[in-house]
Amino acid sequence: MNNMISELKNHRSVRQFTDEQVSDEQLNAIISAGQMASTSSNVQAYSVIAITEPELKGKLALLAGNQAYVEQCSVFLVWCADLYRLKQVTAPHLGDQLSYEDSMENFIVATIDVALAAQNAAIAAESLGLGIVYIGGIRNQISEVSELLDLPELVYPVFGMCVGYPDQENSVKPRLPIEAVLHRNRYNKEQIIEQVKVYDVTTKQYLLERTEGKKDTPWSQMMATRLALPHRLHMKKFLESKGFMNK
Amino acid sequence: MNNMISELKNHRSVRQFTDEQVSDEQLNAIISAGQMASTSSNVQAYSVIAITEPELKGKLALLAGNQAYVEQCSVFLVWCADLYRLKQVTAPHLGDQLSYEDSMENFIVATIDVALAAQNAAIAAESLGLGIVYIGGIRNQISEVSELLDLPELVYPVFGMCVGYPDQENSVKPRLPIEAVLHRNRYNKEQIIEQVKVYDVTTKQYLLERTEGKKDTPWSQMMATRLALPHRLHMKKFLESKGFMNK
Repeated sequence: MNNMISELKNHRSVRQFTDEQVSDEQLNAIISAGQMASTSSNVQAYSVIAITEPELKGKLALLAGNQAYVEQCSVFLVWCADLYRLKQVTAPHLGDQLSYEDSMENFIVATIDVALAAQNAAIAAESLGLGIVYIGGIRNQISEVSELLDLPELVYPVFGMCVGYPDQENSVKPRLPIEAVLHRNRYNKEQIIEQVKVYDVTTKQYLLERTEGKKDTPWSQMMATRLALPHRLHMKKFLESKGFMNK
Repeated sequence: MNNMISELKNHRSVRQFTDEQVSDEQLNAIISAGQMASTSSNVQAYSVIAITEPELKGKLALLAGNQAYVEQCSVFLVWCADLYRLKQVTAPHLGDQLSYEDSMENFIVATIDVALAAQNAAIAAESLGLGIVYIGGIRNQISEVSELLDLPELVYPVFGMCVGYPDQENSVKPRLPIEAVLHRNRYNKEQIIEQVKVYDVTTKQYLLERTEGKKDTPWSQMMATRLALPHRLHMKKFLESKGFMNK
């Protein structure tokens, strides 16, 4: 195992930050590392809004479900899937020609593009000694977030990312056994159940240790609670209203 | 700029591979680095199928639009969004309770999760001296690919990834100016047009050099051609048929 892989394996989310600020130079290094991730046919269908205005961070923290670290972190990045830019700059070439920015396929392309770039950026940030955490909570009130950030049609905020100097030392969270995730040549339904049983024991143990004996919910049960939540059911309608996925 | 960031910035897709094989140990290191990427509420809603059977790789190469490197690479990874595993292992806890694996939100969560894991894996592979290229082409004939790999409902192949020892030395492809992608506090529509004009010059120049003067299409024009293609219009129907996005 080399240094790069050790660093990747050493990831843990950070939700508590010191007052030390991320410099412009660091931000540029992080975002330009993000830009070097693969992108489907070079469409680069994403944008990122770097939020540093304290008032704006405060509002976003509330909209994301009252998550204090959104306000506390030095820079809050809002990663957006962006087909608006493509639509704008191709319009002069296309004239009256029909185009397909509103296809399901292009929605998927933009969502993948932004995730690949964000993950590169996350790794770059961590390599600079910074900590990060992804914030799905910005989809809680996605219309309000979009309005606050002046996002035009064909742009949606996919997730946020707190970036700052860590003020906590979390342990690395154990993941599913590799056999539950990696299949050989064909999808193997049989191996899943068994491997998740192993993971249920691991996660129970991990929680017991982390909460000093107060919690011991196995993973599959936590996932059941999560899957039974009518969570963000506004997404489909919202995305269609922004011009996505109409084909 | 540190080593990690230099390596991220040094990424280029590889489409030509030597006969040298990726070892099982390397594959495990790559996938387990992938697993350490962030995942929404620890759902880990993805699977990866490692294709090494030559016949299967051959079929996938054809289905992906006759891309020879899919067959030629040592391991072809098919990265799948996977809500089937969650559905299966939570069923005993949920009984008759309604669950939301078929929401748009969970479709997005799974698609992001797989992309974050894949990008970590890509970086891990490159750090081992291997080359990779993402293959969106597996969505060309997505039903056939799903059938070939025995993918159950609530699983879809998001993209493929060729992994192997590089047999070519590409140049790094220039990306959009950072100002076209990075916005401060609010989305800035004005800056896009100007920055894309700059990039059109860059890409024209890059293509001229790379093709020894034969091609000079600027980026915005290439994107116009792409956006006007009725590309993979089967995606919406296919995903709905697999149990995704029905809420």
